[in-house]
Amino acid sequence: MARKRNGERLIYLPLGGAGEIGMNAYVYGVGKPDKERLILVDLGVTFPDMDGTPGVDLILPDMSWLIERADRLEAIFITHAHEDHIGAAAHFYRDLGAPIYARAFTANIAKRKMAEHGHPPEAVRVVSAWPEKVKAGPFSVSFLPISHSIPESASLVIDSSHGRLIHTGDFKLDATPMVGEAFDPDLWAEVCRDGVRALICDSTNVFSPKPGRSEKDVGPAITKLVSEAAGMVIATTFASNVARVKTLAEAGQRAGRSVVLLGRAMQRMVEAAVETGVLTDFPGVISPEEARDVPRENLMLLVTGSQGERRAASAQLARGKYRGLTLKEGDLFLFSSKTIPGNERGVIRIINQLSEKGVDVVDDSDGLYHVSGHANRPDIERMHKVVRPQMVIPMHGEHRHLREHAKLAESNGIQGIVAVNGMMLDLSGNAPKVAEYIETGRTYLDGSVKIGALDGVVRDRIRMALNGHVLVTVILDEQDEPLGEPWCETMGVAETGSSNAPLVEILEADLDQFLKRAEAKTLKDDGKLEEALRRVARQSAQNEIGKKPEVTVVISRMR
Amino acid sequence: MARKRNGERLIYLPLGGAGEIGMNAYVYGVGKPDKERLILVDLGVTFPDMDGTPGVDLILPDMSWLIERADRLEAIFITHAHEDHIGAAAHFYRDLGAPIYARAFTANIAKRKMAEHGHPPEAVRVVSAWPEKVKAGPFSVSFLPISHSIPESASLVIDSSHGRLIHTGDFKLDATPMVGEAFDPDLWAEVCRDGVRALICDSTNVFSPKPGRSEKDVGPAITKLVSEAAGMVIATTFASNVARVKTLAEAGQRAGRSVVLLGRAMQRMVEAAVETGVLTDFPGVISPEEARDVPRENLMLLVTGSQGERRAASAQLARGKYRGLTLKEGDLFLFSSKTIPGNERGVIRIINQLSEKGVDVVDDSDGLYHVSGHANRPDIERMHKVVRPQMVIPMHGEHRHLREHAKLAESNGIQGIVAVNGMMLDLSGNAPKVAEYIETGRTYLDGSVKIGALDGVVRDRIRMALNGHVLVTVILDEQDEPLGEPWCETMGVAETGSSNAPLVEILEADLDQFLKRAEAKTLKDDGKLEEALRRVARQSAQNEIGKKPEVTVVISRMR
Repeated sequence: MARKRNGERLIYLPLGGAGEIGMNAYVYGVGKPDKERLILVDLGVTFPDMDGTPGVDLILPDMSWLIERADRLEAIFITHAHEDHIGAAAHFYRDLGAPIYARAFTANIAKRKMAEHGHPPEAVRVVSAWPEKVKAGPFSVSFLPISHSIPESASLVIDSSHGRLIHTGDFKLDATPMVGEAFDPDLWAEVCRDGVRALICDSTNVFSPKPGRSEKDVGPAITKLVSEAAGMVIATTFASNVARVKTLAEAGQRAGRSVVLLGRAMQRMVEAAVETGVLTDFPGVISPEEARDVPRENLMLLVTGSQGERRAASAQLARGKYRGLTLKEGDLFLFSSKTIPGNERGVIRIINQLSEKGVDVVDDSDGLYHVSGHANRPDIERMHKVVRPQMVIPMHGEHRHLREHAKLAESNGIQGIVAVNGMMLDLSGNAPKVAEYIETGRTYLDGSVKIGALDGVVRDRIRMALNGHVLVTVILDEQDEPLGEPWCETMGVAETGSSNAPLVEILEADLDQFLKRAEAKTLKDDGKLEEALRRVARQSAQNEIGKKPEVTVVISRMR
Repeated sequence: MARKRNGERLIYLPLGGAGEIGMNAYVYGVGKPDKERLILVDLGVTFPDMDGTPGVDLILPDMSWLIERADRLEAIFITHAHEDHIGAAAHFYRDLGAPIYARAFTANIAKRKMAEHGHPPEAVRVVSAWPEKVKAGPFSVSFLPISHSIPESASLVIDSSHGRLIHTGDFKLDATPMVGEAFDPDLWAEVCRDGVRALICDSTNVFSPKPGRSEKDVGPAITKLVSEAAGMVIATTFASNVARVKTLAEAGQRAGRSVVLLGRAMQRMVEAAVETGVLTDFPGVISPEEARDVPRENLMLLVTGSQGERRAASAQLARGKYRGLTLKEGDLFLFSSKTIPGNERGVIRIINQLSEKGVDVVDDSDGLYHVSGHANRPDIERMHKVVRPQMVIPMHGEHRHLREHAKLAESNGIQGIVAVNGMMLDLSGNAPKVAEYIETGRTYLDGSVKIGALDGVVRDRIRMALNGHVLVTVILDEQDEPLGEPWCETMGVAETGSSNAPLVEILEADLDQFLKRAEAKTLKDDGKLEEALRRVARQSAQNEIGKKPEVTVVISRMR
């Protein structure tokens, strides 16, 4: 292939998802440098935590680069309906304005999100699977079915004058996925027959050495477990794993149990899957109200909250009750799921609460009740061999995953390159080349406002959480002399320290002493006075309680 | 055995460690009810996290119950030198005042801690292993050697007029522990021959179905790995796992590498082990300064921070440099450790930073480079069989562990009872009986101050972290009329919201409007005015940025 066509190049730019698992957002472009026409693949979110992002509602990729170039953006393609791929689409709809393409199930979810944000659902356009093509500027894009842990996942076949790219999206190679299309190696071989310039490939499970197992494999164990249970059975999994939800519901049905769906996501996902024809012959369900009249040994609850989320149905049931239903000794709770790293504490909290109620808990520690939705190492290698690309660009992984994946490709004689968020690659040549580094980052949705990760707002919150907060107010008269004594209020700070007197009194006494001795030029200067008062307050607290709080100083002048 | 002797009873009261993994503190007593003479086994800490205890330095058990009865406390026995067993001893030394007994290595660590707190190291008394006995009021206590992941761990043989108790402390059944005594089944059988009333037993690994492996098992794999490494080798493990540290150092030595110990805990533990004769023929080490002149392929660093602690040597090396040493592409980093649930994020952060530097990371995912220090399920059963107690009281576990352990005992025909913190058991009869519920909890060491977990201080910090903080100041003149306009300052709150004007201006305008319309009786009443201003500020913020911050109101009056 020629290096450039008329000076045009093919670029790849991850704005999210490369160097992390979450908030996927990958830009492709074709055109003269800085004039490329662009498409965006996926636009997802990642979730905040107390460690680094307290109080934040949602983490979005920083899309500034693309927003500035929105006039060059032809279309957005969503590979599947997981939040880390679709969750930010509605949040950036006004900024980007481009049409959103997806397969029916994904589009159904996307339209619901658009409607919730007051955007036109028609901006989401339904596309059929390969061989249907969407023309988007210099690109022609098709949705090639692939198996994953949600219906209608697709890899994208991205064609341009620079040849064919395959962007896998999230995938596994499942011959029996229970819901949706199986991986079809013949179709894939055909699609890739004429050569693929680059495979942009999911890296999540590159450290899992054994071939992945099929969704079908968990059915018998789940069926057996449910049929042998004596009390009520409660099972949790990701609601979007519609195949699993179906397997669980069928296991309940076979055991003569009425099935109840608990949690908004659980109901919404099943609804979307039925509406789009993805899910057929799902067992009939009853409402929580109806369930109250059914003997508990004839009930099977399918609940949200497999990751220990505090507000989800599972956590509420573990704490007490949810929609009138309660758990009892002898009930069985099944985690048909894997705990995502970082969520252990929340999940363990629930398990201990269940233990206190005498509920038996079964999780996946024996590998019986869950299979991953991502390709393991041998499956990734198989994908490389099916596609036979000129180069592999690992994505959807932390740095360690990307690096390992690139090494894996190299070990099989395929070029691999680690490209993290913000690293723009020029894929026009025989080898990938770093074209430019773009500033990227994270945007926080905080209440109803988007704030930059580096704005300092969250940093201040973390500081207050670590150190507590002291407020100092001082009033100065017309002659810049203190009027009365300084006043302190504390929040999140110990009330008494080493001298056993109230901390605020100690602080006020120390501040008062300082004010009485302060020079006129300090008292006249707001900046100097504020800084001095802050220093005195922090030192006073350090002496008394052994730590320095955050301090806000308010100086009021009568003049 | 008779139910009571002269109306005396034998009690067991966990104040920490039962219903959690951490801050172990178990009280035993013999005497007439409420007159028992008491001993305390272990006095440990647990570690804070950002989720629930931001800014806290250390979590201690709430020892109020025992402090109120300190005059009845005969002695404190420490089973081994892990922080969750020894870490709070110096913090409560003044409150409890009792002598502290431990074996030599544990005592060495305890004395260092006492000295750091300015307490007399002599309060710590060194005891030899069984058959030496310590007389403590109605009790006679011996230290029976058992294997664990730290030198000189001991179970306690606690004799009284009510017969013999065995308190295992943390244990595994290791025939080849490399450092310290192997588990000696014959000695144990002899000790338990005449009957054991109760076995108070470690539950940590009750969910691990396979027999535990020996410390010896990791040696060959570690030796092989280190000998094959090309660049510098860095290995981390718990510093207190002296056997592992030795295995790692020897692997380095055999590969012709100079060994460097990095991190305060690593140096201190090796020092204590050498001082007490526990560790002999440890390879010679060089200083970090000397290491700078050694080619990296001839270096082996043993570093602290296996749990991803931000300030530990491992994290500092991963971020940049530590004591003049830096990592490079081609180096090998070994986690000879398991990540404790809840620490995953920190460990993964380090692994990704190492990946960015091109350092290869090897962890224990294949089970080659680490073994647990706790007895697995079959080992626990073996312990039950060796001791043949009348009853099993599971300890050192979360509720799920205790419950499973009790069920395990019952399944083998031994009485088991789940007793969580605060549940006082009367062990005098043929079956354990709940005697009383004691209020227990956690005490936070915060800076230099101890604060109660329910004091609200940390709750306020969490609220500020989640919601941010707004300060409102208002000055009222002699007629209780507002003097000028209200003043706001924010911290941890978005600076602008939906109307694009600075949030403080919006807040001030809304507060000003409110003040102008406020009734005289509101303006005269501090409580009412404060509440009203808070409500207005929160609602104004809600409209503007979609969240309600914590609000502090300061009202200054000129009268």
